[in-house]
Parts: sequence; C-alpha cells; structure tokens
Amino acid sequence: MRMYDLIHKKKNGGALTNEEIGFMIKAYVDGDIPDYQMSAMLMAIYFQGMTPEETASLTLAMARSGDVIDLSAIEGFKVDKHSTGGVGDKTTLVIGPIVAACGCKVAKMSGRGLGHTGGTLDKLEAIPGLKIDISKDDFTDIVNNVGLSVVGQTGNLAPADKMLYALRDVTATVDSIPLIASSIMSKKLAAGSNGIVLDVKTGSGAFMKTVDKSIELARRMVEIGEHAGVRTIAIITDMDIPLGNNIGNSLEVIEAVETLKGQGPKDLTDLCISLAANMVYMSGKASLKECEELVRDSLYSGKALDKLIEMVSAQRGDSSVILDPDKFEKAPYSHEVKAPRDGYISHMDAEKCGIASMLLGAGRETKDSILDYAAGIVLKKKTGHKVSKGDVLGVLHASSKDLFERAEKTLLDAYSFTDDEVNLRPLVLAKVDIDGVVKY
Amino acid sequence: MRMYDLIHKKKNGGALTNEEIGFMIKAYVDGDIPDYQMSAMLMAIYFQGMTPEETASLTLAMARSGDVIDLSAIEGFKVDKHSTGGVGDKTTLVIGPIVAACGCKVAKMSGRGLGHTGGTLDKLEAIPGLKIDISKDDFTDIVNNVGLSVVGQTGNLAPADKMLYALRDVTATVDSIPLIASSIMSKKLAAGSNGIVLDVKTGSGAFMKTVDKSIELARRMVEIGEHAGVRTIAIITDMDIPLGNNIGNSLEVIEAVETLKGQGPKDLTDLCISLAANMVYMSGKASLKECEELVRDSLYSGKALDKLIEMVSAQRGDSSVILDPDKFEKAPYSHEVKAPRDGYISHMDAEKCGIASMLLGAGRETKDSILDYAAGIVLKKKTGHKVSKGDVLGVLHASSKDLFERAEKTLLDAYSFTDDEVNLRPLVLAKVDIDGVVKY
Repeated sequence: MRMYDLIHKKKNGGALTNEEIGFMIKAYVDGDIPDYQMSAMLMAIYFQGMTPEETASLTLAMARSGDVIDLSAIEGFKVDKHSTGGVGDKTTLVIGPIVAACGCKVAKMSGRGLGHTGGTLDKLEAIPGLKIDISKDDFTDIVNNVGLSVVGQTGNLAPADKMLYALRDVTATVDSIPLIASSIMSKKLAAGSNGIVLDVKTGSGAFMKTVDKSIELARRMVEIGEHAGVRTIAIITDMDIPLGNNIGNSLEVIEAVETLKGQGPKDLTDLCISLAANMVYMSGKASLKECEELVRDSLYSGKALDKLIEMVSAQRGDSSVILDPDKFEKAPYSHEVKAPRDGYISHMDAEKCGIASMLLGAGRETKDSILDYAAGIVLKKKTGHKVSKGDVLGVLHASSKDLFERAEKTLLDAYSFTDDEVNLRPLVLAKVDIDGVVKY
Repeated sequence: MRMYDLIHKKKNGGALTNEEIGFMIKAYVDGDIPDYQMSAMLMAIYFQGMTPEETASLTLAMARSGDVIDLSAIEGFKVDKHSTGGVGDKTTLVIGPIVAACGCKVAKMSGRGLGHTGGTLDKLEAIPGLKIDISKDDFTDIVNNVGLSVVGQTGNLAPADKMLYALRDVTATVDSIPLIASSIMSKKLAAGSNGIVLDVKTGSGAFMKTVDKSIELARRMVEIGEHAGVRTIAIITDMDIPLGNNIGNSLEVIEAVETLKGQGPKDLTDLCISLAANMVYMSGKASLKECEELVRDSLYSGKALDKLIEMVSAQRGDSSVILDPDKFEKAPYSHEVKAPRDGYISHMDAEKCGIASMLLGAGRETKDSILDYAAGIVLKKKTGHKVSKGDVLGVLHASSKDLFERAEKTLLDAYSFTDDEVNLRPLVLAKVDIDGVVKY
C-alpha cells in the first residue's frame, strides 16, 4: 500500500477502506509517512469529505493508536461528557456530582485549558489540596465508592490524534466535520466509558457557526460512537452567550457549588439538568422524563452537592471551601465595568470575554503562564438584558490594578448594543441521538 | 505574512496577491516554509484553481527563483520551442535548423530524457564527438554565427519549480492546470527567449486527455507568456500516435536528417513545418502564410540541413554522419514484430512504444542506465493502417537477442486492432495565441 495512491484516491472523491485508513494511521504514527503527504491528504479530505464508514474507521484507528483505558474494574454504567469548548463552562463540576448521585459512574480524565480560559483541571486545582494526579487504583476505588472522580489524563491517549491535530493546526485543515468528529471521538472512545453525552456548541463564537452545521457534526459523532458500541447523545447548545455569570477558576467553582445548592443562574442550571438527564437516561435506568425527575431530585435534595464534597475529600482536597465558598481566597482588587450607553445587549462575544478573563490572570497566555485562581470576571448583564448608561456590566477581579485597563477594554469590546428589544433563542437548540434529530 | 493565512485564503477560494505568492515561493526556496504547509497549499490549489493573475505571479516567482539566462549578447529574435512530452519526438532536430535557416535565432538549453525515451540531448550525443557542455561564450558565438545551438542546461534554472515538482510528484498534485502551466512556463521564461512555441500534446497518452483540456492548459500558458512580454503560441497536437516511424537515439537523428532532406514521414514533416512557421511568424518577419513558404523553402532547398551540419561541426561533432546517415553505428541484431491478426490498427499506446524502446536499451530504466544509441524501433505500421496477419508492424534493433522478447510483447501490447476502417483525426488539432483559439 502506498500513501500516494491513497491521496490520489481521496483527491478524486473515492472512499478509503478500513484497511487503507488503518495502514495510513499506523504508518504515520510510526514515522513512515511524512507530514507533507499527510497534510495533502488532510486538505483532500477537507474538500472531498469522508463517508460515515471512513470517519468511523479513522476514529477507531486513532483511538487504538495509543493506550485504551480499561474501566472494567469500575462497576455500573460509566458515562462521560464532552463539550466542544465554551467560555465559563463549569458544567462538569455540576453534572458529574448529579449523575453520580443518580447512580451512574463518572470516571473522567480531563485536560488543562489550552485556550484563553482554564480547563476543568485548573478549576479543580483552585480547591486547596485537591490532587488530580492519583494512581489508577485510587481512581478506580474513588469511582466505585463515590461514583465520581476527575483526574488528569494519564497514559498516551490517541497519539495519532495529537499528531494529526498539530498538523491540521498549521495547514488550515481544522474545520472539516469528519476530522473534528474523529478527533473528539477518538479520545472519548480511548477513555473507555459506556456512554457519552456531547455538548456541541453552536454560534458565532463556536467552530460550528450554524445549528445545521452543528447538527451535522453531532450526527457524525453519534454515528461513530454507536458504531463503536458506545451509547452517544449530542445536545446542541448556544455558544453565543457565556454560560452562567462567573469566568475564572475559583469563581467558577463557587458558581458550580451555588448551582448544586439550587441557587445557580438559570441558564447554567437548565443546561446541567438537560445534559445530566440524558447521561442518566442512556444508562437504561428509566425514561428521559423520569431521569429528569431523578436529576432534579438529586440537585434540589442536596445529594449531588454531597457527592462533590465526597469526591473533593477522596481526592484530598479541602471540602470546607465547598461547604462555605466564602473561604476561597479573594482577589485583592476589583473593578466595575460600566455600560457605555443605554439600550439592549444584542450580542456577547464569548471568546473576548474569555480573553478578558485571561488578561486578569485566570487563563494561560502562554503554555508556561501561572494561573491566578482568584482572578476573573463576574458578569452582571448578558445578552438580552436592558441597560442604562453607567449600569455595571461586570466586575473584574485581579491581583493588580494594572491588569484592569486591557481587560476592561476587551470586555467592553465583547458587548454589542442595540435600541430594540432582543429575543433570545433557547440555550438548548437541538438533540441528536441514534433515533434522529429533534430541534427545539 | 504567514503561510497559514495563505493556505486558509486559497482553501476558501480566495485569490493570492502577487506579493503573497512572491513571499511564499521565496520563503519555500529559503527553507522557511516546510513541505507540509506547501503540500496543503498545492492540494488547495488543485481544488480551488488559480486566476490567470495568480498563475502569472507564480510563474514569474518561480522563474526568478534562480538564474535567469541573459541572451542579450545574441542578436536577432530568439525563439524557443517546448513540447509537453511525446514518444519519438525528434522535432527539435528538424525545427531548429529550419528556423535558423529562416533567420531566427535558436539558443536552446535542453534536458536529458527522464522518462522511458531519450531526450534531445541524448539524441544529439548519438552524433559522434558532439559536445553539449560548452561555455556560455562559445554558445553565444555559435548562435550568432550559425543561428542555432543546443546545449545542456547550465546554471540553476527555476529551482522553486524543481522543488515544487518533486513535492507534487509525491502528493498527487501534478494534474492541476495552473501548476502544470506555471511549471513549464517558469523554465521557459528563465531560459530567456523572445518567443515560445508550445507543442501541447493531447490524447489518451498525454497529461491532457481531451482537446478542450489541452486548450485550457494552452490558453493559460499563452496568457502567462504574453503577460511576461514573451510572444507565445501553442499548437495542440495528437499524442495518440507516435511521431514519425523511428524511436531510439541514432534512429531518430537519422529520421530527422531524412526529414531535412525532404524525405521524412508525412506526419513529422507536416508538424515541423507548422511549428517552424509559427516560430518564424512570431519574429514579425512576415504573415503566417509567407512564413510557411519560407519554411518550406528552407527545408526543400537543403538550407535547413546545412544549418544542422554547421551546428554539429561548431559543437565539434562528426558532421559526416549527417551527410551520410549510413555511417551511424548499427545495432547488431534486429527482429521483426508481426501483426497477430487481420484488420485495421485502431489505436497505438505511445507510452508503451516508448517503454518497448527503453527495454531495447534506447531509454533509461533508472537514472544511471547507460544508453545504447543504436537501439530502438522502426515502425512500419501505425494507427489507421490496414494490416494482414503476419505483416511486419515494426522492426526492433538491439545489442542482444535476449532483449527482444519483453520488447516485442510490450510493442504488441501497444497496438489495438479493429475490423472497421479507422478515420484518423488531423495531427494538428488547434492553435491558441493571444487572439484566441482556432480548432482545426
């Protein structure tokens, strides 16, 4: 088999066989196919696409290119969640405890923030003492006993995806649906759960700008997952509005705790209930409606918050900050950002909100940046709100007053205003599962 | 400027500016753009194409990436010819002397055969003593005095094209019209003539399988040439029939000499007259009709043959073999290949004829193969001819009888037969110049 022939075939619109894709991925990881041939292939895939069968083959070949996590020592239905990126997305910290409280198992390997905001691991590390690098046996024990553990990624998961992603990133071949779908799903399949709920963001700030494109990506991922014997459901959600009000590591843990106490912002609470209900539903426990009841009960009864406390303690974190979030260290300085005009907020650029937070110290500007867990933004006004000139849009928190100027400018730049009332679309826009697509 | 942005732009169907293309080619030759980005760009160009302006910019950037030959020391109108490949193509040996006899200057740098048959240089070296590696001053003097010199390529002509071609060759991005056009024209523009006649082959054995595709390529090359201030005309000719009867180095020189004596095969003679007339015409000497008369006169009066003899002597070759081609060394063995059936020859695969000749020793199987100048094939029957079973289709010539078996099998494989009479299309199918396209 020659890579040249595979490029030629794809360029002319042919479908690669499972054997051809398996050869290509193995030879690429082994260094037997040079980058310049793979990048030509990626560009040909961008233009010619891939069939569902090709995409499934590519995903499995990448998933099997490195370690595949064996979760068989964990009893029960293991369910995972993936979000295609989002600013202020602290859903894992809310959903994990809810789902565990409903009897499912969440054995989650998470990543650090690569972009402008911290990842789930960074948020967890804002909890004093909490360890994310624990042994496989401890991880298994915690999930078996508590129902939930979130740790750093160990082992070499889907190295082919890492290599391909790095190449796509420098050859303008990131925005291809089969390549995005196979990249996400290869890591999820290698992580070993029995079910996956995908939160696919849509909107001007997301990879997928339209609901239809997001549905296309979601369908492809659902096909891949089910093809590999893993229950998969995708929820399409609005990216054009930052989720909840807090952006920043400690600030997001605090908001997650408030939500687990039933006092969180409505958008975050609703989305967490929807995602969690689908996760519980796929375990086969009950109907979706019944699962939603179970989820609400675990949230409003305090059982879910108890799970978070148990997990934090099991991972040697100080659970007193969960019981009393006022104990989190505060940033010494704060600064109010005020509305420059009267009107309605017509749009918020979530990415710019994230960058503003990063400028305050909450995210990594470079790989080696040290995070300030206390830094961040508390939004007071979001898309759809009516404001008067001088109203507080958000409060910046930082360790130095010098950081406010650039962050304020960036945050203000994230807001667009209009004179007319703004109709918000629902946060959850569609659902895709093996049975098809439902738009809301 | 970043290569990433240029790939992104081209991928999305944008047109690169002259500055962007100039940056890209310079940085690639300098090693500042890696192959994997360039191959992604080439694949994006394959799918999105290039505007005439982009193609012209790419051609000039490649032409200027290395040495540009300065022919200003040669007086008069310097005219060049390029053929997009062909088996048994000895036209340079006929046309060069004709055009020189008509008062134009032919200062030609030629290449060796890279494929299965020898190139023009290989054919010239079949003439005992002839030197193709002569100094620039001698080259200039010979062209000024004789009107004609053909030498090996010196200097570093269009290194960007060499690098890009090598990359296209392994990434399945050869068959793109803007990339083919810019590759050919970059070398021609770097070679410094005032006018170029392009012989664009079309047919099942050529890069361009249809007349329309060949016209598209021709138009693009004419645009590029004229844009760069070089008169350019393209003649579209039938590739599906080997030109003349002889394939092999000495054999082709012998056929060229016969043609210059007015005794050559009709197809070769007609094509040489057509190409030569256009070359003389572009010097502005006279109308095309008058140029055709001039060309016929120089051919049938023996003036053109005199020019070949003068050039061979000036390049220290033994011109007695031109006066008496019987003096060429003969291959010791010959073998007749006979028609396997009655019927009409419906098609000849020119490439297979070339491979058969290579198997006899006339071409290079690998880069280091040593050529047998005397080896080759004399065709007796070509497309359109009626044959009876047992008629001689061609005669093989080689230094060993052992070479005949594979060559005979390959040559027979090149012939297709039919029961019905075959209508041949004309050899010259169309002409493209600055004024437009004429189909014949």
